[in-house]
Order: sequence, then structure tokens, then C-alpha cells
Amino acid sequence: MRQYGPLCVGIDPHPGLLADWSLPDSAAGVERFALTVVEAMAGQVALVKPQVALFERHGSAGMAALERTLAACTEAGLLTLADAKRGDIGSTMAAYADAWLRDDSPLAADAVTLSPYLGFGSLRPALELAASSGRGVFVLGLTSNPEGASVQHVGGAASVARRIVEATAVENEGSVLGSTGLVIGATVGPALRELGIDLEASHAPILAPGLGAQGATPADLRAVFGSVWDQLVPTSSRDILAHGPDVASLRAAAAGVQDSLRD
Amino acid sequence: MRQYGPLCVGIDPHPGLLADWSLPDSAAGVERFALTVVEAMAGQVALVKPQVALFERHGSAGMAALERTLAACTEAGLLTLADAKRGDIGSTMAAYADAWLRDDSPLAADAVTLSPYLGFGSLRPALELAASSGRGVFVLGLTSNPEGASVQHVGGAASVARRIVEATAVENEGSVLGSTGLVIGATVGPALRELGIDLEASHAPILAPGLGAQGATPADLRAVFGSVWDQLVPTSSRDILAHGPDVASLRAAAAGVQDSLRD
Repeated sequence: MRQYGPLCVGIDPHPGLLADWSLPDSAAGVERFALTVVEAMAGQVALVKPQVALFERHGSAGMAALERTLAACTEAGLLTLADAKRGDIGSTMAAYADAWLRDDSPLAADAVTLSPYLGFGSLRPALELAASSGRGVFVLGLTSNPEGASVQHVGGAASVARRIVEATAVENEGSVLGSTGLVIGATVGPALRELGIDLEASHAPILAPGLGAQGATPADLRAVFGSVWDQLVPTSSRDILAHGPDVASLRAAAAGVQDSLRD
Repeated sequence: MRQYGPLCVGIDPHPGLLADWSLPDSAAGVERFALTVVEAMAGQVALVKPQVALFERHGSAGMAALERTLAACTEAGLLTLADAKRGDIGSTMAAYADAWLRDDSPLAADAVTLSPYLGFGSLRPALELAASSGRGVFVLGLTSNPEGASVQHVGGAASVARRIVEATAVENEGSVLGSTGLVIGATVGPALRELGIDLEASHAPILAPGLGAQGATPADLRAVFGSVWDQLVPTSSRDILAHGPDVASLRAAAAGVQDSLRD
């Protein structure tokens, strides 16, 4: 991250992008797409984020393509964040943790996104496995989709989103930057202040999706996350991926976004 | 369901149960376990619920075992509910819907569980695909794990859980029993009343995990769900699966639970 900056590039083989890249809407097409992004981003960014749903859409063959993508990332020196948004309880949550964070799992990534509808504490098996295997998790906190408020903003001064952020702070106590991260939408606007959410105190790496196609500009990022710029992992997907399948064009698009994020 | 009653039997190939059944902790072990449950439950119950995490734990090979399990269920006349707890937004949610609810997907099930941290409305692509493909979804509402309250009970008289149940009611308007179901823990005790949640008005099939090993008795189910007994899909996993790998013993265990649920 120090060498390349914080930008995380999504690997999102959407059906529409596959068509734009003249690839079939199949597990083979998804794999070709993903390996092209890996080739383009190797030596350009530190971190890539495969969107698991777009692999899972093709069943076990799609998941096998994801396994080979993750292996290719490791080979290419890219850190991986599996955007899986998994969440369950007890031994079932432990099984998801095993899948995404255990050293010898074929789906092992450097970090995974988790969803806390069953309570932040239900994610415990993943938090522990991440800490012990030197990996990370990013827990959904405050998202910028219009429907998110109906769950995340509930509770007034003690909103659901604020509780998640505060539980994350407890988790990261004693670290400058802990292994328990948060997902905070880049387009949440004034909601952080309105809900009294203190991201700085969380000591959490903050994954901020929404740059580019979803509407957030680098200026928006500065406005929302200026005080926690050192914790920020902005992600961009479609805006960069639209420049494929040409590897040099993908790389140039990522470089452009990186430039826009520099101090 | 009419012929066999509402009991849903979990297909939960936990590492501990695999060992008890003298099966390896591998994709092959998981598949052998799952196909044994299918053989035992065919002609005994209407519905089985594979726990996706326990397949995913073995990567794409585990997901291939799940695909063959789902196919075997269809062959055996068993309805399937994939317990995946997926949830995301926009075209990513549409991809999850495609994976679990689209007719020609290798992972297609008769229903899937969904997690609404990103808002009930974020699940729209799955609600629509379920309705159009004659399948169903079960949205997490109120769970009985101790950590669940920290999200689901937030909001007082307009709690998160109540909002999910009310959104489900809107979804099912005009149906006696709609295609949008709810997951409500069998051990939630007085929380339904305390939170002012009206399950009857939801017209939702209600998946109630927790019978048996998790602590709920048939009497608890009557106490919590008496007024919505006709909507209820009680599920039992470990208590029944502990009787394997003998097929006759598994079948007898399911029959015993079915008897305990009869009027």
C-alpha cells in the first residue's frame, strides 16, 4: 500500500462488461476477464477486490475461476479482498471464516467483507481467524445505497451503524490500524456527522466504495473522509474496468484515479 | 408440504458431524454426507435446507458437491432451501439472485435465505426473480442468537426487525401465503410481543430454526408461533443428523420430530 497508494481496484465481471469486452457470459469468460485485470494491475496497485457474486453466478465453475484468480493475484504480488458480504452465527460463521481466511483454503484472500445483520459479535470466528492468520475483515457499517438507511440509520443517537463502528473501535483498541475494517460508502455525505460516527477512533481501515461510476468524486472523498485519509481504501470498479480489455488502457485508467487521489 | 408436514431438515455437514459419521473433512466427505441425508429424507419430509457455508468451506469443489446435492434433491422430489444468507445491492444482488433462483443456474434452489443489512429494498432483484420463477426467499428478520438484538432490536417501537417484517407484509399483500418469507428464531421468546411484531399480517412463510440442539422444544414453538402455525416451517438439523449415517435411523429421527409437531 505504501508503494502504490490506497486505491483498490474491483474485479467485477458484470454481464454487461463481459459483453463490452467481447467475452462470453460464462465461467470461462469471467476467468479471462479477471486474469486480464490481474495482469493490468500487477505492479500498478496494491490491492484488488473480486466481487464474489459475479463469480458465484456461474456456480462451482465460477468459484473455481475465482480460486485461480486469487492464486494469480498472489503470484503477481497483489493483495486480495474478497467482496463476499458473508454473515452467519456460531459454527456456520466459523465455516465462512475457514473458507475465506484460512491459510490452506482454495478461496483464501487477504481480507473479506462481512455483513453484521446477526450482530457484530456473531462475526467473532472471522475476527479471530483474521487476527491469527494475519488477514483482515471489512464489516459493513454505513452504505450509501438509498435502502441502507432503513436499517443502518435506525436508533437515533445510538444507530445501528454507529454501534457497528463503535464495536469495531473496541476490536482495534491498541492498534494504530487494526485488522478489523469497515465498509463506509463514499457517497454517504453528511450521514457520518448526523449519526455522530467517529471513524478516527475506530482505528479501522475503511473501504469506501462508490468512486467513479457510483457518483463519488475525489473531492467528495476528501470532504467525507478528510480526517481519516490515512485509514482510507477507496475502491473503483466500473470506471476503470470500462477501459478494458486492453491492458495498457486499464493500467492508465488506474493511474489516472491514483493521481486524482494524491495529496 | 401438505403431505409430509412443515418440518424442514437441515443438511449441515459440520466438521464434527463428518467425523462422527466416519467421513473425511473434504468436499467428497461433504457430498457423501449430503447424499445420505437426501436418501433418508426422500419420501419422509417435503423440504431440506443445505447450509451453504459448510459446502463453501471446501471451495469450488464443495460448491460442486452442493450442485450435485441440489440435483439429487430434485430427483428425489425434495424441495430445497439454500441457507446462504446472501445480501448486496444493485447488479451485485441481481447476480446472487441469478445464482440461487434462476432456472438454469447449477445452484438453483426452490428458495434461498437473504440478509437485509443493506436494507430490505436492496433485495429487490431477488424478490422479483423469486416471484417470476415460482421460487421463494426467506429474509432474516429476528434471530435468536444473543448478538442479534444489537442490530435487530434497535429502534424501539420501530425496530429494525419490525421494519423488515412490515416490509415483508407489503411484499406479500394480496397473497394468503406469499413468496417472501421470514427467518424468525424459534427461541426468540417474548421479543416478538415486546417489539410489537405481527407475523400473521406478514402473510409470510416463517422459517424457524432452533428446534432441538439449539434449545427450542415443540412446546416453545407453540408458545411463540401458535397464532401463525399455518405459516411455520420449523427446521431441525443437528438433533436429526446426530442419528446418521444410518439411513433408517435418520428417517426415524425425522419421523419423531414430525410427530412432536402434529396437532
